Amino acid sequence: MRMYEIIEHKKKGKALSKEEIDYVIQGYTSGIIPDYQMSALLMAIYFKGMNIEETSDLTLAMAKSGNMMDLSLIRGIKVDKHSTGGVGDKTTIVLGPLVAAAGVKVAKMSGRGLGHTGGTIDKLEAIPGFKVELTMDQFVEHVNKHHIAVVSQSGNLAPADKKIYALRDVTATVDNISLIASSIMSKKIASGAEAIVLDVKCGSGAFMKETEEAVNLAEVMVDIGNQVGRKTVAVISDMNQPLGYAVGNALEVKEAIETLKGHGPKDLTELTITLASHMLVLGEVCSDIKEAEIIIKEIIKNGKAIDKLKEWIALQGGDVNAVDNYELLGKSKYTEKIILEDTGYVYSINAEEIGRAALVLGAGRENKTSVIDLTVGVVIHKKIGDYIREGEAIATIYYNETAQQKAARSILTNAYVITQEVPKTPQLIYKFIG
Amino acid sequence: MRMYEIIEHKKKGKALSKEEIDYVIQGYTSGIIPDYQMSALLMAIYFKGMNIEETSDLTLAMAKSGNMMDLSLIRGIKVDKHSTGGVGDKTTIVLGPLVAAAGVKVAKMSGRGLGHTGGTIDKLEAIPGFKVELTMDQFVEHVNKHHIAVVSQSGNLAPADKKIYALRDVTATVDNISLIASSIMSKKIASGAEAIVLDVKCGSGAFMKETEEAVNLAEVMVDIGNQVGRKTVAVISDMNQPLGYAVGNALEVKEAIETLKGHGPKDLTELTITLASHMLVLGEVCSDIKEAEIIIKEIIKNGKAIDKLKEWIALQGGDVNAVDNYELLGKSKYTEKIILEDTGYVYSINAEEIGRAALVLGAGRENKTSVIDLTVGVVIHKKIGDYIREGEAIATIYYNETAQQKAARSILTNAYVITQEVPKTPQLIYKFIG
Repeated sequence: MRMYEIIEHKKKGKALSKEEIDYVIQGYTSGIIPDYQMSALLMAIYFKGMNIEETSDLTLAMAKSGNMMDLSLIRGIKVDKHSTGGVGDKTTIVLGPLVAAAGVKVAKMSGRGLGHTGGTIDKLEAIPGFKVELTMDQFVEHVNKHHIAVVSQSGNLAPADKKIYALRDVTATVDNISLIASSIMSKKIASGAEAIVLDVKCGSGAFMKETEEAVNLAEVMVDIGNQVGRKTVAVISDMNQPLGYAVGNALEVKEAIETLKGHGPKDLTELTITLASHMLVLGEVCSDIKEAEIIIKEIIKNGKAIDKLKEWIALQGGDVNAVDNYELLGKSKYTEKIILEDTGYVYSINAEEIGRAALVLGAGRENKTSVIDLTVGVVIHKKIGDYIREGEAIATIYYNETAQQKAARSILTNAYVITQEVPKTPQLIYKFIG
Repeated sequence: MRMYEIIEHKKKGKALSKEEIDYVIQGYTSGIIPDYQMSALLMAIYFKGMNIEETSDLTLAMAKSGNMMDLSLIRGIKVDKHSTGGVGDKTTIVLGPLVAAAGVKVAKMSGRGLGHTGGTIDKLEAIPGFKVELTMDQFVEHVNKHHIAVVSQSGNLAPADKKIYALRDVTATVDNISLIASSIMSKKIASGAEAIVLDVKCGSGAFMKETEEAVNLAEVMVDIGNQVGRKTVAVISDMNQPLGYAVGNALEVKEAIETLKGHGPKDLTELTITLASHMLVLGEVCSDIKEAEIIIKEIIKNGKAIDKLKEWIALQGGDVNAVDNYELLGKSKYTEKIILEDTGYVYSINAEEIGRAALVLGAGRENKTSVIDLTVGVVIHKKIGDYIREGEAIATIYYNETAQQKAARSILTNAYVITQEVPKTPQLIYKFIG
């Protein structure tokens, strides 16, 4: 088998065989296939696409390119959840204790990554003492006994995906549905998921701007899941404005805790209840989605959710007091309220710009070596459809540096579009696929 | 300017600006742009194409990526000729003295390269003592005084093209008309050509198998020539069988000499007269193609062509006696006549396979480090439409090694298709573009 011929096949629109895909992934991971041939193949894939068999073969080949997490010592169905990412997305921190309290096994590896804010792992570090690394024995024991453990992605998980993603990122070959879907699914499969609930975001603050694209991506991922024997469902949710109000690490943890207490923002609460319900069904805790929703709502209401959060924090060495005393999560030196000159209804919010404001304040990583400031960020006060009266703030900036404050203020001021008519508010959950 | 955005532009089908193309070529030549980004761009170009402005900009950018030959010391119009390559193509050796004798200035740089046989430069080395390297002063003096000098391509001529070609060769991005055309034209322009006659081959032994493709390539190259101020014309000629009979270095030199003496194969004679005539017109030796043909035919007839060949050989240190005593060109130790079992008309010849037989015998380079055997090769005796009687040889193999002989025999035996009806013989010259 020769890489040249594989490129030629794809260039001519042929479907690649499992053997060809395995050859590419093994060869590229080991360094036998050079970057320049891989990027030519990726561009050919961009133009000619991959069918579901190819995409599934690619997913499995990437999943198997490194260590495959063996979670067989954990009893029961391991249900994982993945979000395609958006602004203010703190669902994992809410979902984890929520479904663990309901009986689902949450054995989760999460990332740090680049973005407007840190990843779940960064956010968890806002809780004093919280350890994001456990030994394999601890991890298994926590999940078996307490139903929850969340650790930092470590080891050699899907190295092919990592290497290919880095190449796609510099060769303008990111935006292909098969490549995106296989990248996400390969990591989930390598980290031991047996069933997967996908939260596919869609809108100005998401990678997928259009509903159609998001549905397409979700369908491909669900198809891959079915092909490779992992029960997979997807929820398409709105990302035309931040999820909840807080964007920033400690700020988001606080909002997640509030949600577990039953006082969370409406959209975050609704989305986490939906995702959690699907996790309960996939985890075979109950058979019906309506029943699952009732259970989840009850768990929030009766305090089991917040109790499970405390249990989880304690297990991973964190200070449980932070759940009731948010000061312990850390706070920025300064705050500033952002007030616009106009009054009227919020017609739209550029969610990506809200995220960028948080990034500028230091809440996220611009590159791999950036150091995150967990205390900074943005809390918006107005969402789409809300009315802004004279002098009312649209948002509060939490900051430590004046230069960053100015930049963030300027970004936020331009992120809102105000109108005099009552605008249509976006639907939170567009579609379910599964 | 960023390479990422340039790839993205082409991926989306945008035409690249001159500035973008210059950036790519300078960046890639200098090593600032890595191979993996270049190969992604090349694949995007394969799918989205380039318009004539882009192709011309690319040609000039590649031509200017290294040294541009300054032939201003040579008086008169420097007319160059380029063949897209085929089996048994020895036209340069015939054309050089032919048009030089008619008054055109032949200041030619030729290549070695890979292929079924060596390049023109390798073939010329079959003439004992022939030096393919001259100082710039000698080169200029020879052309000014004697109208002819042919030297090995040296120096840093269109290094961008060289580097890009090597990358295309391993990333399945060779077969794009703009990339092929600009590669050829950039080298011609860098080597100082002011007017160019293109011999675009078409058929089983050529890179372009279909007439339509060949015409398309020729049109693009003529367009580039016009865009960049080089008078360019193209002749589309048949390559469904070897040109002439000989395929091999010394064997081809002998056939070229015979042609200059007026005893050459019909097709080689016709094609060289046509190409030479166009060179005379572009070189402004005469204004009319019919008149040019009469001049060329007369030059062969009256011995001026063969005299010019001798003059040229002597100027470059070669043994003039080789022109009349072919033994001096060197000969293989053994020969074998290839006789088929069938009788009948030659319906078709797989020209590429004839070339491969020569390559197997050692006449060409499989890779850059291969050493050519100048004495070996194939002389076919039957061309399309010829009748093969019982016991008549279709070809003679000239060889030095028995293992190679066997391989070549097997290839040749399968290269001929014999039929009982009189087949249609291919037209030698399909089309003129200019």
